[in-house]
Amino acid sequence: VDIRNAGFKITTVDTNLFPAGFNNLNPDFWPLCVQAFQAALEHVCPGADRVLLVPENHTRNSFYFESLGVIYDVLRQAGFDVRIGSLRDDLRTPETITLASGKTLVFYPIQRVADTLSVGDFKPCMVLLNNDLSDGIPSILEGVKHKMMPPLTLGWSTRLKSVHFTHYQQVAEEFSHVIAMDPWFINPLFRVCDEVDFTKREGEGCLMQQTQSLLDEIQRKYDQYGINHKPFVVIKADSGTYGRGVMTVDTVEQLTHLNRAQRNEMAKTKGSQAIHRVILQEGVYTFETWDDAVAEPVVYMVGSAVVGGFYRVHEQRGINENLNAPGAKFKPLAFDRSCHTPDCDNSDSHINRFYTYGVIGRLAALAAAREIAEKTRK
Amino acid sequence: VDIRNAGFKITTVDTNLFPAGFNNLNPDFWPLCVQAFQAALEHVCPGADRVLLVPENHTRNSFYFESLGVIYDVLRQAGFDVRIGSLRDDLRTPETITLASGKTLVFYPIQRVADTLSVGDFKPCMVLLNNDLSDGIPSILEGVKHKMMPPLTLGWSTRLKSVHFTHYQQVAEEFSHVIAMDPWFINPLFRVCDEVDFTKREGEGCLMQQTQSLLDEIQRKYDQYGINHKPFVVIKADSGTYGRGVMTVDTVEQLTHLNRAQRNEMAKTKGSQAIHRVILQEGVYTFETWDDAVAEPVVYMVGSAVVGGFYRVHEQRGINENLNAPGAKFKPLAFDRSCHTPDCDNSDSHINRFYTYGVIGRLAALAAAREIAEKTRK
Repeated sequence: VDIRNAGFKITTVDTNLFPAGFNNLNPDFWPLCVQAFQAALEHVCPGADRVLLVPENHTRNSFYFESLGVIYDVLRQAGFDVRIGSLRDDLRTPETITLASGKTLVFYPIQRVADTLSVGDFKPCMVLLNNDLSDGIPSILEGVKHKMMPPLTLGWSTRLKSVHFTHYQQVAEEFSHVIAMDPWFINPLFRVCDEVDFTKREGEGCLMQQTQSLLDEIQRKYDQYGINHKPFVVIKADSGTYGRGVMTVDTVEQLTHLNRAQRNEMAKTKGSQAIHRVILQEGVYTFETWDDAVAEPVVYMVGSAVVGGFYRVHEQRGINENLNAPGAKFKPLAFDRSCHTPDCDNSDSHINRFYTYGVIGRLAALAAAREIAEKTRK
Repeated sequence: VDIRNAGFKITTVDTNLFPAGFNNLNPDFWPLCVQAFQAALEHVCPGADRVLLVPENHTRNSFYFESLGVIYDVLRQAGFDVRIGSLRDDLRTPETITLASGKTLVFYPIQRVADTLSVGDFKPCMVLLNNDLSDGIPSILEGVKHKMMPPLTLGWSTRLKSVHFTHYQQVAEEFSHVIAMDPWFINPLFRVCDEVDFTKREGEGCLMQQTQSLLDEIQRKYDQYGINHKPFVVIKADSGTYGRGVMTVDTVEQLTHLNRAQRNEMAKTKGSQAIHRVILQEGVYTFETWDDAVAEPVVYMVGSAVVGGFYRVHEQRGINENLNAPGAKFKPLAFDRSCHTPDCDNSDSHINRFYTYGVIGRLAALAAAREIAEKTRK
């Protein structure tokens, strides 16, 4: 769960259901991961002890392999028998990859007979997806009998950020009602434009109109609370982007003056279609810093439990810029304390900061759970 | 869960359902406690957010208050609204106790109307018992509507160690079957004598006969595995003892030569009756040491999760002696790592030692769960 903390406002700006980056967590909190996997998988699939872990199809991304290695280790430590089953078309026999630590991971080709998956003689009880399926649902996974988490329909080929944030908004409103708070303090406003083609400049009318409407609404909130900052809007594809095609504007005019490079960048989302739904999200300043560099917290969850997180720290970016983009090299800085132990007796903001991150993470997880429930009902 | 590790054998020797000593845990693992309480209470009582914590009636035991303070803090951090409701007859108004840390705990007299407990205007969803009820079930708790954990019938006035160890033996056998191991490696043999009065020397025949039978059975196991140690037997009341009235013998003759002081000590169990059931348990050497002092591990669990533990370290006791007895002052030494992160790829016994403690703890918790299920069915 990507979080932005403006001081006057803290909220999630993205909830990834197929996260990498587990290797960035503080190893001190791996026991929390182990315990959380035990609790979560017991909910999903009582009695399951064989897990097929389906990773991304990367073949050379060592950061990703390190993250996968942590998930693999933690699942084993939680008592599960785990195999890594790859969706790569070119994989015919098991392939061993050696991590920087010297540890090895074996990638098996997945076999399917009728509605049952296997790798060799290993028959999984459940499938844990760590592949965002942005190229669509692979036929080998469709209609299998195994319980799959997250469900196939939550892959980026069918999932929309705007649906997540519609649920999140509802959750934020319910939560804020309980503690008598304006939900805006934890909820980013947003708009959607259905059909935008940045290269052909189609859908620009909607973009400009919605951007202005959103900037106006943010300004009204800033006025209401006496916030002296310039509202801005983050524009990105409504499907998964891997941080690509993310644009920040604070005036509508900036949209009409995009150069060709900027237009091409915005059209470059994962998946190939040039026309896509676009989400316009209230920009949230990050006033978190680490050694004078801009930082934004990322919270990791397993099931309903917060298991840790890290700061994305970036020395060359501004407080209104997206820190999660290719080329935008950030330094991960693991949380040095868990999100579980607030100081209940005083409001020391430093001590309770991590707890607050965890609360936002849990609200986002609840929104994701409702997303899953809705998709699964259909 | 009290554990003894003889190297050739590791097992629980006592499972306390109303533990003190939470203050001896490593604070680094409190997040595990928080997460475990969330998971456990969700199982017991979904949606519960108000917990009445019922402690022992101690009025001056600062160690106990520190432990209670940890349970209280952890429950609050887990998101529960908690009150401490005392069973003390003499408590008419709330009483505040200040801990060494400066933190305060408020003890409220419990009120009851019909089948509902309350303290002031606080109406709990569930009751968390941390009082071992060795003087019997207090009428104020009997027949109330609240979910109570552990159930009243598991208090020491009605609970028998031998029933726990009958369940534990079954669990140990099932577990050992899965990994093709002799269950004796994790299970202490035991016998029971129904009616023993140490002061009047009644029931001595049963004691001597069963002690001999048990020593013989242990010797056969020692012979089978080539263990060159002297078998010994631990004799204790089958109900809770708080470590009182625990005796170690390695010959039957020792039983006939008890002096008056020893007999009185054995008759001194919590609760007043002189005649009681006695459990004779296979003595398990502890070959764990810490700085040359004898040590035995104690594992703490919340629900099904292991949340930490400590070593009882004792400089004046032998490897076949009970370290948990009044006067037997031990030094608690918190585990410096969790029991969750075994090294799955090699068998480094130091690294995997804590994991093994946790496994024994979880088997004992499973036995306790069956005890609870059996008692609750009745």
